[in-house]
Amino acid sequence: MKFSYISHLYCPKCELTYHVKERHQLCLCGSPLLVKYDLDGLKKVLKPDDLLRREASLWRYHELLPVESQENVVSLGEGMTPLIAMSTIGEDMAIRNLYMKDEGIIPTGTFKARGAAVGVSKAKELGVKELAMPTNGNAGAAWALYAARANIQSSIVMPVDAPKITRNECAISGANLYLVDGLISDAGKIVGQVVKDFELYDASTLKEPYRIEGKKTMGLEIAEQMGWKMPDVILYPTGGGVGIIGIYKALIELQELGWVEGTLPRLVAVQAEGCAPIVKAWEEKKAISEFWADSSTIAFGINVPKALGDFLVLEAIYKTEGCAIAIDDESILKELEKIATMEGAFICPEGAATFVAARRLRESGWIKDGETVIALNTGAGIKYPETVRVEVPVLQPGDTIRKEMRL
Amino acid sequence: MKFSYISHLYCPKCELTYHVKERHQLCLCGSPLLVKYDLDGLKKVLKPDDLLRREASLWRYHELLPVESQENVVSLGEGMTPLIAMSTIGEDMAIRNLYMKDEGIIPTGTFKARGAAVGVSKAKELGVKELAMPTNGNAGAAWALYAARANIQSSIVMPVDAPKITRNECAISGANLYLVDGLISDAGKIVGQVVKDFELYDASTLKEPYRIEGKKTMGLEIAEQMGWKMPDVILYPTGGGVGIIGIYKALIELQELGWVEGTLPRLVAVQAEGCAPIVKAWEEKKAISEFWADSSTIAFGINVPKALGDFLVLEAIYKTEGCAIAIDDESILKELEKIATMEGAFICPEGAATFVAARRLRESGWIKDGETVIALNTGAGIKYPETVRVEVPVLQPGDTIRKEMRL
Repeated sequence: MKFSYISHLYCPKCELTYHVKERHQLCLCGSPLLVKYDLDGLKKVLKPDDLLRREASLWRYHELLPVESQENVVSLGEGMTPLIAMSTIGEDMAIRNLYMKDEGIIPTGTFKARGAAVGVSKAKELGVKELAMPTNGNAGAAWALYAARANIQSSIVMPVDAPKITRNECAISGANLYLVDGLISDAGKIVGQVVKDFELYDASTLKEPYRIEGKKTMGLEIAEQMGWKMPDVILYPTGGGVGIIGIYKALIELQELGWVEGTLPRLVAVQAEGCAPIVKAWEEKKAISEFWADSSTIAFGINVPKALGDFLVLEAIYKTEGCAIAIDDESILKELEKIATMEGAFICPEGAATFVAARRLRESGWIKDGETVIALNTGAGIKYPETVRVEVPVLQPGDTIRKEMRL
Repeated sequence: MKFSYISHLYCPKCELTYHVKERHQLCLCGSPLLVKYDLDGLKKVLKPDDLLRREASLWRYHELLPVESQENVVSLGEGMTPLIAMSTIGEDMAIRNLYMKDEGIIPTGTFKARGAAVGVSKAKELGVKELAMPTNGNAGAAWALYAARANIQSSIVMPVDAPKITRNECAISGANLYLVDGLISDAGKIVGQVVKDFELYDASTLKEPYRIEGKKTMGLEIAEQMGWKMPDVILYPTGGGVGIIGIYKALIELQELGWVEGTLPRLVAVQAEGCAPIVKAWEEKKAISEFWADSSTIAFGINVPKALGDFLVLEAIYKTEGCAIAIDDESILKELEKIATMEGAFICPEGAATFVAARRLRESGWIKDGETVIALNTGAGIKYPETVRVEVPVLQPGDTIRKEMRL
């Protein structure tokens, strides 16, 4: 049995196809490329129960991943993140069956590890020696560390305002790290130039076809963790949108395999009010988004004014009868605190946005009574220390805590 | 079939036994209490293969945990952390079969989540409404968050020098948080007083019997992940020592169940040169340690001058023919960087200390050629940003990266 059932690459815009043995970035037409698998072949030899004895990482789905030889797998044990019942806050927002897929519980502390693990593994398989990418922080950190593990050199460019800890992660991995006094789009231009000047592999979002395959595993895991039953709604914090595109792709593949049945979950793209190009496009029923000028939000990971894969995000929303919704920063911070005090989970602002979205969509009746809802938290709160205000009394040795000092 | 096969509590010093339906802290004789299970009963009804369909969390071993009713389980999906091959750095130190058990991939980013999950769950089962504890940071963060999930109030006291991010975690959980301008021993005295004054549940290290049961699951997981075969050596960064005591207890229980065979792995207690009471006691072949004055190390989590369970740590070392070894801070930081650049794993200083220890013990011949060695990393590097020095060039939008700016 083959390790991967990858068949070929194809362009979702112009339908051109490409071989998988060579390096490819974008399609000649400028669109991102997607991976196709031989699902008819796989269907005959693999059943869900065959996964039981496999390790609890995303590599348990290796037939549905693009890496053809097991020895090229570069893994730090990523994936099979917990799907956690959020009953208390669920009750608070009248959603009885509310779950959180917690992507903070993964190497580097964010869901970016999935794309990096699969993307770097495939880059290794293709003989890549050096890659480059712009980042809002977390993706760069993940790619730099996985690249180090694969013995691939990396060049990472991030805005000076990106989360500080992600600088440390890049630096300690031995990456070429640069800050830019601007936005991720400015970082992108610098990367474009360095890729050309030094003939590097361009690992920018959707400019190589494999990161999305890593992100796809969130969808595979949700299906397996739900016992191969579909939830009704999945809410996803959407910047570049690779995750929501990936989840949609995963669920379609599982349908074709016959592992899941029934209607697809309604996919919800959650954005910040200060950067909501997908929401605007969806409201106007458009197929692509426009550049969002002067974007700004504390949820740094979803500060993406124009995503290369916007048309794929919108397709995923339209095809599943989902929606798109924008949340303000103040509500995000309030919900983040509520989730910690009610559920004990310290999550990232992007993740908190999905809970605010769930709350609003339930209030409006878009989420119906009794529906099963999954909110994606894309990263650990510990990567975002500045979201918490701390005022703590300092005692001296021998002091005692008096009654009025307690809650 | 029962959810837990817990039988009773017993004192490892005076052998007094206690019922499990009541709250207990220390034994009347002052020793920590340990949990006993009905392993003969369990043996008849549970086999390793029965675990296959269970979720990838530490609760897959619920029969070997003290929580008697499933509804009292307070979980954020902790456990089944990856066991990762460390081939490159393994080769670098001439240990071909080197693995890392990565406890950074867990809620709150450190192994303290295990003790907190099981400890808080049992506290909930026992009807606890408020708990208190001193901490070097990470344990307090974990207990505060799990307590929030259990709707238990918490009071946490930590040194002002404890990792800053752990303050944020306690604060956002809604805990009563206090800093003390001193050491964890000073925090401990303040907690002792507040426990008395307000009749709180004392969750200090080993002052309640259940945290160790949570930590024990590291040993259960290692055994399962190794296919129920014992490794030769396990290295553990040792402060309070609950983890090493727990791993030892787990392996004994698995032997009694007949799930593992052969010699127990040699357990190695790794300490910092600036705080090495266990190492000193072991070198002097003593059964207990002495208070280590003026302790100091960057590996904050193992800055514990005198552990309540020192005699149990030393017993685990002696009984398994293990050893104890102290590492200097400079070597820890160097190894930490090496692990990131060679393996792509950004780990904590305490974890890095175990790799230095492995390197030294291999050099001395104590670890033999071909032996299988597991190093425990107790936390994610992202919780310790100050271990990395970052000097990064700042570019302006439109700048290009020149050749001399690259590695």
